[in-house]
Amino acid sequence: LSEPAPTITFLSDYGLEDEYVGVCHAVIARRCPRAQVIDLAHGIPAGDVRAGAIVLRGALPFAPAGVHLAVVDPGVGGTRRAVAIGAGGRDGESHLLVGPDNGLLMPAAERLGGVNDAVALDASPERLQPVSSTFHGRDIFAPVAAALAAGAALADVGEPLGPSALVALELPVATAGPDGLAAHVVHRDRFGNLILDATAEQLHEQGIAPGAAVRVAAGAAVHAGRHGAAFADVPPGELVLYRDGLGMVALAVNGGSAHARLGLERGDELTLAPAQRQ
Amino acid sequence: LSEPAPTITFLSDYGLEDEYVGVCHAVIARRCPRAQVIDLAHGIPAGDVRAGAIVLRGALPFAPAGVHLAVVDPGVGGTRRAVAIGAGGRDGESHLLVGPDNGLLMPAAERLGGVNDAVALDASPERLQPVSSTFHGRDIFAPVAAALAAGAALADVGEPLGPSALVALELPVATAGPDGLAAHVVHRDRFGNLILDATAEQLHEQGIAPGAAVRVAAGAAVHAGRHGAAFADVPPGELVLYRDGLGMVALAVNGGSAHARLGLERGDELTLAPAQRQ
Amino acid sequence: LSEPAPTITFLSDYGLEDEYVGVCHAVIARRCPRAQVIDLAHGIPAGDVRAGAIVLRGALPFAPAGVHLAVVDPGVGGTRRAVAIGAGGRDGESHLLVGPDNGLLMPAAERLGGVNDAVALDASPERLQPVSSTFHGRDIFAPVAAALAAGAALADVGEPLGPSALVALELPVATAGPDGLAAHVVHRDRFGNLILDATAEQLHEQGIAPGAAVRVAAGAAVHAGRHGAAFADVPPGELVLYRDGLGMVALAVNGGSAHARLGLERGDELTLAPAQRQ
Repeated sequence: LSEPAPTITFLSDYGLEDEYVGVCHAVIARRCPRAQVIDLAHGIPAGDVRAGAIVLRGALPFAPAGVHLAVVDPGVGGTRRAVAIGAGGRDGESHLLVGPDNGLLMPAAERLGGVNDAVALDASPERLQPVSSTFHGRDIFAPVAAALAAGAALADVGEPLGPSALVALELPVATAGPDGLAAHVVHRDRFGNLILDATAEQLHEQGIAPGAAVRVAAGAAVHAGRHGAAFADVPPGELVLYRDGLGMVALAVNGGSAHARLGLERGDELTLAPAQRQ
Repeated sequence: LSEPAPTITFLSDYGLEDEYVGVCHAVIARRCPRAQVIDLAHGIPAGDVRAGAIVLRGALPFAPAGVHLAVVDPGVGGTRRAVAIGAGGRDGESHLLVGPDNGLLMPAAERLGGVNDAVALDASPERLQPVSSTFHGRDIFAPVAAALAAGAALADVGEPLGPSALVALELPVATAGPDGLAAHVVHRDRFGNLILDATAEQLHEQGIAPGAAVRVAAGAAVHAGRHGAAFADVPPGELVLYRDGLGMVALAVNGGSAHARLGLERGDELTLAPAQRQ
Repeated sequence: LSEPAPTITFLSDYGLEDEYVGVCHAVIARRCPRAQVIDLAHGIPAGDVRAGAIVLRGALPFAPAGVHLAVVDPGVGGTRRAVAIGAGGRDGESHLLVGPDNGLLMPAAERLGGVNDAVALDASPERLQPVSSTFHGRDIFAPVAAALAAGAALADVGEPLGPSALVALELPVATAGPDGLAAHVVHRDRFGNLILDATAEQLHEQGIAPGAAVRVAAGAAVHAGRHGAAFADVPPGELVLYRDGLGMVALAVNGGSAHARLGLERGDELTLAPAQRQ
């Protein structure tokens, strides 16, 4: 009986224009030829640890148990640690996350059931030597992820580290104010949809019910929208506030681009309120 | 003796900047770890069902028999059906196409030998629940494709549907007029080549023979080109009309960009005629 | 005991917007379903054989022994040959490179240990017929690479060719001048880092020591930088000259973009000198 191939999910801000992702795949294939690598996303904005953490947290619950390699690493070559983290408990599945100790992995580890144990990889026996100071994806993270996929234990690839030593990450959250829910654009996707740092619970607390008309204020402009479930819940060309695939609140224009309509970029603030509120 | 891994080809307009494609891969790997996923293209212009249908029709004859997942789905969450289609006959190969019932799959199904049977997936036992209203790629199409790759029959994944109930798709076609063949730009590729909605037969009917000089009229501008087989059939910097890899007529500039030369975008019209015609 | 799947690395200038890469994957899967394809990079600038050669040379030493498919092919359909090359010796590993005979494969073949033997593929029994004149990636290179991965010998896929018949490639190199080391931008990556055609040895010859201050002259502008190993070796926002992951000298701005700071594009010249030199 042949065992299923071990899987390694891979998320980064390397983009796909350059060879960085491909070289990491090559390194993995040398160390663990059986591993199946699943590219989750490589278009995280360069150096944006929080955007990477949000996508990783949203995507990993859909992935098989296994190894998860994630690299958004503006501090590469500096003093930040390289780590591998054991997480799990949810559904009895066990996960191993590998990446920089800058908070990138933590929201996903929490979502998967919490951190169980961790090791520091900076002197890992699995690292490629000489280790460069600018490409730890290739020289540390990918070979360690491959070793774990091949069956190595955490203790085989690094030095034990107390989970409390791991760097935490503060994610942006929308806040309730006098004019409504002040939220921020976390991400603009290919379709021009704007993903916000607000939750469905926060909409509920604001009295923004499913189906209700919504007031979206951004700078001096005010836009009319509706809280729906699907794009088609509003007429073509109109603004809909919905819960996106990763569970975040998002804004779309049915058949169009909310980005183009609202003129908002990542990081910009907007205020959501029921339409009747003035 | 180990059987070859089942294959799933995957085409979409999700792009590769966001995590949408990666999450679908993750869902497939959970349901059918043995499946080998072949990404055909994810850069179909957002919501352009016809562009997606043309690429799918051209690409699938080069793919192994198996499951074909395709998602260009501007009507997601609305009233359009989700379907899986059995197609084949050509070369005795059997194909299963999975995607929205908006015509996207139909030209490919025809090219592969025609529709044999179909099922509606909207209440598929394989769907991920709760099904979102904005990401059926993840919640319906990917898990159904994975189930079919794992050996499920069409009848296992949906409700039978008469092939005549499937939504057809009208593809753009060049038309002969008094000034020549009026064609449209279907796609502009990375090299600046312009793929047209014209066929080699239509060129022949216009008297545009291989090797002949061609008159290309676009708006007020008229360009001189040549009907060739290879880019190198014209001198560097000159315009060549050729049959592209998917069998469509296309325009290129040898060593340059037909897009930049002609200033044409997707959807724009141009007229092709033998050079001697005034 | 099951053998590990054969690997095919794949580099091209096809980009990932169109279906060209995906169709090559499909062709490989039909011919050699067991093959594992590793996409090294598909964002090589269109038609830039030298840029492709530099990336291939830098990336292949990290890849498993096996078949390496590379297509940057501005002369497709013209008189250039299609070739497969046996290379190796380094570490006792054996490599087979497949692509156009325009020099693209040669620096990598040298780096892997030198050319051992070669065959011309233009009449390969493995090619897909009819062979198009514009897409040899699909019609010649991918099926030949797949056949080799499936175990075919070089002699099975083409006509023997003396290694001396292969087209060589002149790569750009920085040159020492009175004002310092005159280098060129070979590539700008996603992070805005500028990869140069200079080597660490050349910096040493100029007296640019690790840790030393560097003078970077580009056109009329002069910038101050430092020779470091990691981005963090300079304060945020400052310019660092470093050895990049592929072994080339590169310029970065810590936490920023050297491309934006210096306003340089691929091909532009700049001069590197110790800061004390006037």
